[in-house]
Amino acid sequence: MKDRLHGVLLMNVEVPTLDRVAEKKARQRLDRLTKPQGSLGRLEDLAAQIAGMKGQPVPQIGRKVIFTVAADHGVVEEGVSAYPQSVTVQMVLNFLRGGAGINVLARHVGAEVIVVDAGVAGEFPPMDGLIRRKIRPGTANMAKEPAMTRSEAEQTVEAGMQIFTQVYEKGGIGLVGLGDMGIGNTTASSAITAVLTGSSVRAITGRGTGLEDAALDRKVQVIERVLQLHRPDPDDALDVLHKVGGFEIGYLAGITLAAAQRRVPVIVDGFITTAAALIAWRICPEVRHYLVASHRSVEPGHATALKTMELQPLLDLRMRLGEGTGAALAMGLVEAACKILTEMATFDEAGVDEKAE
Amino acid sequence: MKDRLHGVLLMNVEVPTLDRVAEKKARQRLDRLTKPQGSLGRLEDLAAQIAGMKGQPVPQIGRKVIFTVAADHGVVEEGVSAYPQSVTVQMVLNFLRGGAGINVLARHVGAEVIVVDAGVAGEFPPMDGLIRRKIRPGTANMAKEPAMTRSEAEQTVEAGMQIFTQVYEKGGIGLVGLGDMGIGNTTASSAITAVLTGSSVRAITGRGTGLEDAALDRKVQVIERVLQLHRPDPDDALDVLHKVGGFEIGYLAGITLAAAQRRVPVIVDGFITTAAALIAWRICPEVRHYLVASHRSVEPGHATALKTMELQPLLDLRMRLGEGTGAALAMGLVEAACKILTEMATFDEAGVDEKAE
Repeated sequence: MKDRLHGVLLMNVEVPTLDRVAEKKARQRLDRLTKPQGSLGRLEDLAAQIAGMKGQPVPQIGRKVIFTVAADHGVVEEGVSAYPQSVTVQMVLNFLRGGAGINVLARHVGAEVIVVDAGVAGEFPPMDGLIRRKIRPGTANMAKEPAMTRSEAEQTVEAGMQIFTQVYEKGGIGLVGLGDMGIGNTTASSAITAVLTGSSVRAITGRGTGLEDAALDRKVQVIERVLQLHRPDPDDALDVLHKVGGFEIGYLAGITLAAAQRRVPVIVDGFITTAAALIAWRICPEVRHYLVASHRSVEPGHATALKTMELQPLLDLRMRLGEGTGAALAMGLVEAACKILTEMATFDEAGVDEKAE
Repeated sequence: MKDRLHGVLLMNVEVPTLDRVAEKKARQRLDRLTKPQGSLGRLEDLAAQIAGMKGQPVPQIGRKVIFTVAADHGVVEEGVSAYPQSVTVQMVLNFLRGGAGINVLARHVGAEVIVVDAGVAGEFPPMDGLIRRKIRPGTANMAKEPAMTRSEAEQTVEAGMQIFTQVYEKGGIGLVGLGDMGIGNTTASSAITAVLTGSSVRAITGRGTGLEDAALDRKVQVIERVLQLHRPDPDDALDVLHKVGGFEIGYLAGITLAAAQRRVPVIVDGFITTAAALIAWRICPEVRHYLVASHRSVEPGHATALKTMELQPLLDLRMRLGEGTGAALAMGLVEAACKILTEMATFDEAGVDEKAE
């Protein structure tokens, strides 16, 4: 697939294989800790996986960063969202003032939120915590024309990679969470997920921020029409992104690729960030080994997307907010899992008798 | 039922009804916060429930305490556990040195662990973080005689109530987690759960710390024999505790009762602490409104016990360690839920447009 990619960065995406030695050493240590073997269930699996991702038998979490990437969507003209487009810019300001759900949950788990303007329909002054790197103020209405040009699709992925790299090189990143904001972006995500999982639009389209029945029907019809109009190529992730994507989704795919390249575990949030992960996975299938699924959203396409990548969500709390809120909660669990490896005593250290034979 | 209880404390157990006004105010505030209504799913339900329990529309969590109560079980003579009895005393020392799973996860969520010796087969010197209040060094072998006298059963519940009250009166408790330690205590919990849920022993008995198939069969047979021998009265929780209980289970039931009396939410851990919650619930059905189920353990009886009390676990991570480890993880989620209420901005405050009509 790489021959179809023109960008210099994209041509050089190489994701390292998991470190099976580190993973095995982590499992051996888990089995010597003062608890019945395997009794911490998925926390133990998670700890061993993180060890394999990071290449550290006793993984240090380090700095936790959630990238909440925002952009607008021309397709809102078709009446596919319960909220007006103005909410995207207003919510970005809310993120920067610390009053949104993602701010509360990120603070709770000790993670930093970095907000990215990938293409919001509105201008922001320079502000702390905001990376201003707009492609343009919202995608085109994909019901009429491709959401963005193919060149813009490449730019979004590369911009995501560069943003990750800049932040990583400045202060390090030990764990990254994906977050999104963009009125209309469940429509783009449904289109992407339908194409990349081979599912029917009806089966994977949901109410987003809260559509009623009639509006949900209209949303499904709009997406079906869009897919008939553009016929995105399921074997070419950039074609899909170009025709039915969103700027924030391309950025998040790029962040995922760049994180996996550097062995940084990526915590996927809900439906939109999972659509971004699908794009990244189609560009480079090895990224899948660096993904942790935080939760199962109530958007019906989310479970399908996760299953396609063989990811098991950690939480199932009927959430559907996005922003990275599920990723933040899961970060707390991932860090807990790693602390099991770093802080628990072994049977020997604690002088505790082992299981009788 | 109260006429059967002799203890002065137990005679006076009165649990306040939930504060529906506080709960409603919390729900109204949740609906005004900058997110689609209901989009934080169970976190929102949890926040409203805690508001109703505490009687505070914007609930403050305060000091978080996990009581990890330890005791030994005479029934281990019957070969019902994969680990030797010596592990109970050794693990208590491990708790006090901070090297056990519960220590790691409690630190992670900022909770204090208070260890209680309710009847460990071994002596401890005075140590920080340990409450020494032993009934005696382990229950009798319930395969031969009642695990404890009826008077001791009452003492355990009252001791739990007193311990909670002492700690509460000294530094306050805003959220309490239940934890257990005791080799053999899944056997007692299976017996209690079978009686109080009306289930077959086979259906609710599991491998505990890791029994093989033949040993699991023996454990089931032992419990069936015990129940035939003593015929505990399912309508009399103290009769059940007296004949097939454990000291730590009685203490945990008492802690639950005392917490509910003071409007303190109780986070139940796995199978053993849920057996304790069943006892408390049978003594005073209103305690149920103050319970939060942290996770679903792999012990097969756990789901049955939770269902009997109509509790939905927050997490399902294949855990089976006990000690309060699941309660600790869930504490992080409960606190996150409350922070949504205390820290998120409303639409008005943030200047964000509401849903289109």
